[in-house]
Amino acid sequence: MIIVMRRQAEQKLIDHVIQEMITQGLKPVPLIGTERTVIAVIGDERILDIHHLRSLPGVSDVHPILKPYKLASRETKYENTVIEVNGVRIGSEEIAIMAGPCAVENEDQVEKTASSIKKSGAKILRGGAFKPRTGPYSFEGLGKDGLKILRAAADRHGLAVITELMDIRDIDLIMEYADIIQIGARNMQNFTLLNEVGSVKKPILLKRGLSSTVTELLLAAERIMAKGNLEIMLCERGIRTFEQETRNTFGLNSIPLIKELSHLPIIADPSHATGKRTLVPPMARAAIAAGADGLIIEVHPQPDEALCDGDQSITTDTFEQLVKEIAVIAPAVRRKFTIKS
Amino acid sequence: MIIVMRRQAEQKLIDHVIQEMITQGLKPVPLIGTERTVIAVIGDERILDIHHLRSLPGVSDVHPILKPYKLASRETKYENTVIEVNGVRIGSEEIAIMAGPCAVENEDQVEKTASSIKKSGAKILRGGAFKPRTGPYSFEGLGKDGLKILRAAADRHGLAVITELMDIRDIDLIMEYADIIQIGARNMQNFTLLNEVGSVKKPILLKRGLSSTVTELLLAAERIMAKGNLEIMLCERGIRTFEQETRNTFGLNSIPLIKELSHLPIIADPSHATGKRTLVPPMARAAIAAGADGLIIEVHPQPDEALCDGDQSITTDTFEQLVKEIAVIAPAVRRKFTIKS
Amino acid sequence: MIIVMRRQAEQKLIDHVIQEMITQGLKPVPLIGTERTVIAVIGDERILDIHHLRSLPGVSDVHPILKPYKLASRETKYENTVIEVNGVRIGSEEIAIMAGPCAVENEDQVEKTASSIKKSGAKILRGGAFKPRTGPYSFEGLGKDGLKILRAAADRHGLAVITELMDIRDIDLIMEYADIIQIGARNMQNFTLLNEVGSVKKPILLKRGLSSTVTELLLAAERIMAKGNLEIMLCERGIRTFEQETRNTFGLNSIPLIKELSHLPIIADPSHATGKRTLVPPMARAAIAAGADGLIIEVHPQPDEALCDGDQSITTDTFEQLVKEIAVIAPAVRRKFTIKS
Amino acid sequence: MIIVMRRQAEQKLIDHVIQEMITQGLKPVPLIGTERTVIAVIGDERILDIHHLRSLPGVSDVHPILKPYKLASRETKYENTVIEVNGVRIGSEEIAIMAGPCAVENEDQVEKTASSIKKSGAKILRGGAFKPRTGPYSFEGLGKDGLKILRAAADRHGLAVITELMDIRDIDLIMEYADIIQIGARNMQNFTLLNEVGSVKKPILLKRGLSSTVTELLLAAERIMAKGNLEIMLCERGIRTFEQETRNTFGLNSIPLIKELSHLPIIADPSHATGKRTLVPPMARAAIAAGADGLIIEVHPQPDEALCDGDQSITTDTFEQLVKEIAVIAPAVRRKFTIKS
Repeated sequence: MIIVMRRQAEQKLIDHVIQEMITQGLKPVPLIGTERTVIAVIGDERILDIHHLRSLPGVSDVHPILKPYKLASRETKYENTVIEVNGVRIGSEEIAIMAGPCAVENEDQVEKTASSIKKSGAKILRGGAFKPRTGPYSFEGLGKDGLKILRAAADRHGLAVITELMDIRDIDLIMEYADIIQIGARNMQNFTLLNEVGSVKKPILLKRGLSSTVTELLLAAERIMAKGNLEIMLCERGIRTFEQETRNTFGLNSIPLIKELSHLPIIADPSHATGKRTLVPPMARAAIAAGADGLIIEVHPQPDEALCDGDQSITTDTFEQLVKEIAVIAPAVRRKFTIKS
Repeated sequence: MIIVMRRQAEQKLIDHVIQEMITQGLKPVPLIGTERTVIAVIGDERILDIHHLRSLPGVSDVHPILKPYKLASRETKYENTVIEVNGVRIGSEEIAIMAGPCAVENEDQVEKTASSIKKSGAKILRGGAFKPRTGPYSFEGLGKDGLKILRAAADRHGLAVITELMDIRDIDLIMEYADIIQIGARNMQNFTLLNEVGSVKKPILLKRGLSSTVTELLLAAERIMAKGNLEIMLCERGIRTFEQETRNTFGLNSIPLIKELSHLPIIADPSHATGKRTLVPPMARAAIAAGADGLIIEVHPQPDEALCDGDQSITTDTFEQLVKEIAVIAPAVRRKFTIKS
Repeated sequence: MIIVMRRQAEQKLIDHVIQEMITQGLKPVPLIGTERTVIAVIGDERILDIHHLRSLPGVSDVHPILKPYKLASRETKYENTVIEVNGVRIGSEEIAIMAGPCAVENEDQVEKTASSIKKSGAKILRGGAFKPRTGPYSFEGLGKDGLKILRAAADRHGLAVITELMDIRDIDLIMEYADIIQIGARNMQNFTLLNEVGSVKKPILLKRGLSSTVTELLLAAERIMAKGNLEIMLCERGIRTFEQETRNTFGLNSIPLIKELSHLPIIADPSHATGKRTLVPPMARAAIAAGADGLIIEVHPQPDEALCDGDQSITTDTFEQLVKEIAVIAPAVRRKFTIKS
Repeated sequence: MIIVMRRQAEQKLIDHVIQEMITQGLKPVPLIGTERTVIAVIGDERILDIHHLRSLPGVSDVHPILKPYKLASRETKYENTVIEVNGVRIGSEEIAIMAGPCAVENEDQVEKTASSIKKSGAKILRGGAFKPRTGPYSFEGLGKDGLKILRAAADRHGLAVITELMDIRDIDLIMEYADIIQIGARNMQNFTLLNEVGSVKKPILLKRGLSSTVTELLLAAERIMAKGNLEIMLCERGIRTFEQETRNTFGLNSIPLIKELSHLPIIADPSHATGKRTLVPPMARAAIAAGADGLIIEVHPQPDEALCDGDQSITTDTFEQLVKEIAVIAPAVRRKFTIKS
């Protein structure tokens, strides 16, 4: 950490900062410059509170040097974390495909989707049972009945289940029905929820918040990991920008960036990242070409009858075609993806 | 609502949309333009799912006309909502001042703050007992002990208490100690929490999310109101922008804007909105000049020893001076603020 | 265009708006709703000034229906615009590759780059001669000498030249040395410059502004086209977001989106879009997988000695490898890219 | 400047960076930490190119310590810069008010406005003669005829003139008619224009770019100052955020922030910052309460007939009332503002 003192800060203020660093067990090195004194601090600065340091008299600015996360960092663990779910090794050279409807609506819809995506090569079924949305007057999901429908369809077709946890009081229920627990973008900084899933024994898919940076996403993962659960998949699902023609902006830079900064797998969600059905296939291809470990895609047998997010769901036919294109791209990024037939 | 069909959309697709609107109990009016057909829909469009409509074949775009919130709208209720807490009528011509430390640290700190802000004219004491933060390795609050310290100090000085609820499992505890329940910026779209505080009988202070629009803030209020709790104060606490020199950007346009759109009181938080102690007084004055119904400010007897947000806390002396300046500005915005002496 | 009147707007205000629309040669259709009157306006609304309409008494809001651009729209011209430069048909199924240094530094640097990119399959050489930057104290380019060096190297290797025009007074100079004129991101809304390049007979590469939407980019293209120059290539070069780990955020959604909205070719610039050498190859692959018509990439024989943007330049070796990966991806997006050997 | 080396960077890479700093005339101090080596660099780092340093082998990150601007900094010049125009001392304790129409339309409009704002206490008349806008199909201003009308009205009423320069070829014309040259938000990083107005002898009003940070605004001022023109007023005119209900977001934090960082005067533009007539008076008051040195406001005798920005222009009556409110607020911020009567 670098502590920049104000110009003409008195020596006693400089000494006070130096003393405080020593008290915290760190090693301060004062550097007397032409314009001001700067104090370099050697040691693990993550224990320091930057807001506190900035409030000390005579301090002008504070620059952290180390990344604020540790467990999630590739510097701490060099090898990729590989999470095995239903025979898919997520984070390995294999591409993981998760697909299914935004919301579980009824048995028929889920059965048709599950059967079709299985044939196309997906091994994980997604679907939401709890769906509160921005406005309070919409369809809010089938709850436990939805989870049952999802599980049954998955079991019939040998698929794993991923579904979202929104309310900590539902955690036992979700643990019973799901193989992967999803934390949604709006809950990326719901610290109560993060603390809670830190102590379960299921893999977590943690979605990037709507306006979060990659560092904040990794800090959210760090919180879960600090509680003991190390099986985290990160998920790039688009961020809010000024663009109005698409629902979000797919921040694909984050894919290779996260691969550099962290050992955790990174999954891409082109459905939420675009919000527009016609953009899903090109952006799914782009995510794989950028190095994503997998995709999570909204698929619906009849998108124009969907109760939720119909405008961003692709049909089972489009999904089948997309998977073939991904199989073509895979070798260009040293990935494997074999379509079962 | 206006449904714009694609150029050259076939008549049967247009008819299908028209039929769907009739089925929903609305009145569609097709307008045949030079380039395309547009369908104007008369009736309460808030029941419609815009994502569903956008997914219908032949539809190019959908424009809502009505605001998506109703209970929170000034069109539904013209008169200002006035919320009375501890003798302060928030939302009336009186200016409400809430002040206190970011986090409750110990009895002495809270006592000194409470005693001082009371003298300066504040009637509501703020303070956090649960303080999880972005990184998982910081001080996270005193919990129940903190609430007790806060309540005791408030009672000694005839102050009301506002504190944040983060975990729905704490709701009974918070109800016992607080007069106003704060929902923090990171939880503005925590629908579980919003639903829950919709059924309690305490006023809510709902903070604007870090990257939320005013419409989304009003929709979050709408969700609480739809569950029965109508006593909502909104709070502008700054939004994230590209600016790096301040913690947030104080979006003060929202103050007069919300006064036009809604009947709910709006409180301004210059501490989080700037993150910089020296900017708090000018921006507090600006918020009042823009028409805010009140302020919530971080005050600490010794900010450079604070365990939380010391860099944005002002001293009790600065607070005293600020309150005097606000009393000078008040008449210019037809407000009353009398400093007790 | 849809004009929403205020609730309880008096009839004479409604009549005034209706009359104004008739005067402008448009056809207003008043729709009397349950809460308010809405006036749908049939005809080419692009002639109307939305700020004027919003200022009319009784008007609550105005929603345009048509896209504000016309010449740039795929609805006006369905077939892709193909721009031929040096035998490359940009906008066809062929992938166009432009490469070269950020700034022209000396003959040796440009010669080495030109010779190497030519071998790898690029047909267009990029390089900047005028390089003013955010701070006024950096290297600002070689000017006319730089253009000569660039042209000579390009001619030796049978490459075309693209370079940026920043000052309208340099237009004749740039016309003499360049085959494609680049308008930089900071000048996307420099209307003086746009008007000027509207009357030259050279293709333009128009970069998206740092915080511009796709609509604004298309409106900037529209301004050039309205002056007569129809040979515009658009360029996605990343936008500003909250992310600090990368220089910009590559807004790749814009690639397939622009392909839907417009007939103009779209080129991707992964160098500026990431600002980080190691992210350039994966994001270049992603851009092609998303459907870009081509790439513009910063390549330098020795990036760590570059006078400009060394941190985002790739070496000639990395470039050679990248081009091979692109050749593998091309067929998956129905594109051709043959590496000459 | 702080140069952070990668973990396990070899000694020879560290030595190479150290040698390069010595060559540049700076003093490097290597700090050997537990995880990595960090090199603190003592001396005026503004001469270094951060992109070049980031590209050096073994370098992980580079943190500047000093602000990148110098002439514009309050550390370089402690006393406020005061710019005298038409007897108003901008930057002193006096509040400067500039008002007038968005665009000059005709003599009658300008005469009515000038006569009225003069009576209300403004001493500077604003008005645009060149008005190209985002879409190419709108009214683009009266040009030289507009300047003549503006000058004549100003002279009749003893007002100074401020108008925008957009095209460097118009500089002599603008110099002839204006007392203050405005650089618009879209040109804040038009380096050609900035260089040019650096050598004229007229005060400049430099508007903050639509998505620019305060540092970038100060760097743009620095560029002008480096060419010799030291009479710069900065202008906060709102930035782009996600909010759709207002045209821009008034970033008022910048007012007290700029007062800390720089000695240059700062003017606030509540018209562009809100884009909504009803929000202009409260936000003008807020700007003064935050410490602005003055205001620039769009005033039109009949806003609903304006050819430009009618929706954000206030009437002469509203302006008169607003000025009175400002006179009430002034003493609360230790400012003087006397209304002539």
